[in-house]
Amino acid sequence: MSNLQFRGYSIKDTAKWTEFEVRDFEPMGERDDTIDIEVKFCGICSSDVHTITGGWGDINTPLVSGHEVGGIVRKVGKGVKDFKEGDRVCVGAQIDACGKCRQCGDNQENYCPEQVDTYNAPAWDGKITQGGYSTAIRAPEKFVFRVPEGVELEDAAPMACGGLTVFSPMHRFGVKQGMKVGVAGLGGLGHFAVMFAVAMGAEVTVFTHQQDKVEDAKKMGASDVVLTTEKDWQKKYAFAFDYILCTIDVSKALPLETLTSMLYVNGQLHLCCMPDDPIEAFKTQSLAANGASISVNHIGNKIEAEAMLRLAAEKGVKAWKEMIPMSQVSKGVQGVKNNDVRYRYVLTQDLA
Amino acid sequence: MSNLQFRGYSIKDTAKWTEFEVRDFEPMGERDDTIDIEVKFCGICSSDVHTITGGWGDINTPLVSGHEVGGIVRKVGKGVKDFKEGDRVCVGAQIDACGKCRQCGDNQENYCPEQVDTYNAPAWDGKITQGGYSTAIRAPEKFVFRVPEGVELEDAAPMACGGLTVFSPMHRFGVKQGMKVGVAGLGGLGHFAVMFAVAMGAEVTVFTHQQDKVEDAKKMGASDVVLTTEKDWQKKYAFAFDYILCTIDVSKALPLETLTSMLYVNGQLHLCCMPDDPIEAFKTQSLAANGASISVNHIGNKIEAEAMLRLAAEKGVKAWKEMIPMSQVSKGVQGVKNNDVRYRYVLTQDLA
Repeated sequence: MSNLQFRGYSIKDTAKWTEFEVRDFEPMGERDDTIDIEVKFCGICSSDVHTITGGWGDINTPLVSGHEVGGIVRKVGKGVKDFKEGDRVCVGAQIDACGKCRQCGDNQENYCPEQVDTYNAPAWDGKITQGGYSTAIRAPEKFVFRVPEGVELEDAAPMACGGLTVFSPMHRFGVKQGMKVGVAGLGGLGHFAVMFAVAMGAEVTVFTHQQDKVEDAKKMGASDVVLTTEKDWQKKYAFAFDYILCTIDVSKALPLETLTSMLYVNGQLHLCCMPDDPIEAFKTQSLAANGASISVNHIGNKIEAEAMLRLAAEKGVKAWKEMIPMSQVSKGVQGVKNNDVRYRYVLTQDLA
Repeated sequence: MSNLQFRGYSIKDTAKWTEFEVRDFEPMGERDDTIDIEVKFCGICSSDVHTITGGWGDINTPLVSGHEVGGIVRKVGKGVKDFKEGDRVCVGAQIDACGKCRQCGDNQENYCPEQVDTYNAPAWDGKITQGGYSTAIRAPEKFVFRVPEGVELEDAAPMACGGLTVFSPMHRFGVKQGMKVGVAGLGGLGHFAVMFAVAMGAEVTVFTHQQDKVEDAKKMGASDVVLTTEKDWQKKYAFAFDYILCTIDVSKALPLETLTSMLYVNGQLHLCCMPDDPIEAFKTQSLAANGASISVNHIGNKIEAEAMLRLAAEKGVKAWKEMIPMSQVSKGVQGVKNNDVRYRYVLTQDLA
């Protein structure tokens, strides 16, 4: 039996998004398939900042955010088959789905229209979900990912959302040995994209406007780093890439036609970003030169999460992280907002 | 030996795009790989209208347009291996490429940066290419497609551009038995898209705002036709389609997010259109619900052209066409401009 208490760092108001206070909360109700997890680590995702600042709209307050959880199983529902007490697990940005629709049947639960976000969403019993800046989280088995040997919990935590969000589209596109992959923007998502693309065997080029990230990109495995502050930097890369993953999260900074111009025939520009504004309007003519496509994803499914974690174990992929105590979450979210982080903050438990 | 003369219906000025006069012209110079073709038929493509009206920019005048040619081989260069005098052939919108770049080496000649359009482009010797509203055309072997038994020349002609432009992307996506395909817009391209998607085995739904096209769409093989003038017509189709091919050539009439909302997970909206203006700006969030992509193509390659013609022979695909004498080309281009055509004008030779 578990003695877990559910308590977390909570905000009361989007106007005061840097002010956290510790509050008890009620998790979603138990079901046969739910698992109670003691939170050990929680990454800070830029989604957290979008949400608590109100950038993506109104929220339910008080709210505990955080959806990159690494922890230990402390209690399992009687229908849970694949986990037992003591297992090391992680939980990402999605915590439930209907389980009945075509998408759920196809293991596309991340595209279920009734998907439930890990925080700030009504759960099956109407309670508003609360995230991982907390002592504990309750999650249905389907949304709990086993952390394999060889991957540390504090690395698995940010991979559960940030890693999966870039792994899934690259996996579906079929990134592999011999492919040339570009990564535009080297933040939390971008750094995972570089490392996982390299782990998949691709030759990776990073596009960044920040000189101070050039060496980091190389250490992550990029074979080439292009400074986008140079004039006409893209010209020598016409038709060069099979796939470009873009993590630039601000529409005005996202040079859509420049990126697509670098793709080989039928190459794909994948937009792993959700800017508040629409992206640059483009003429179809600009994609006709190479028959390119533009794609988007929403996180990934459980099968991909587990494949990603196995690949991380096999290739030794680790997050580049700054560990801070959970009580300093305010510093963390401000660091994300100000783009100070290199490349992920991971909160360590100090409440329990 | 050939006694072909090169003469065609030519315009002098984009401001007078309905005024054609018969003029002699000089074709591109002969090479070992060129073939002289007696033109029997030429389809009228909406590209012709975009070009001669100046909608796509300035042009070289006087100009003979037309790039949906069906004809008979009358002379072959000494290096030509696959054709001989008397062969039935067709020629589409591209007449040459560099032959040396990566794309050309990969049989992606339709994405060669030095591709030469069938008319209004400088050929290898600097002459401006002239199209198929004419007695004859000279084309390198690579850009001449054999018309197989079972396909009439007058059907092959409009397929060489209009057919190939929709066949190529559907072929590359892998349209096949069991897939649900939507076709938005039922004009020249749309009608080929319906018939070829059906020939590939897909279940096809047509979206049109024109009541008078509903019966036609069904006769072409569509299993469902949706009138887009009805309110919220798209709602019952959420997640319904694997692939939607859009031929709507006017940005304001192209409901991008409505179309993508009907795609299943990782479905693709293919834009087979080149409106003068940019397409509607969209938020990446709108594609995140299903992980959709948006793609574009530029005609197709020779391998696809020949595969298309074999499929047409096998499944009995024919263009829905109105045959008019070439001397009435002015009526034809105006009919295309006014959207009167059902569904392709094909000019019959009356000059030679």
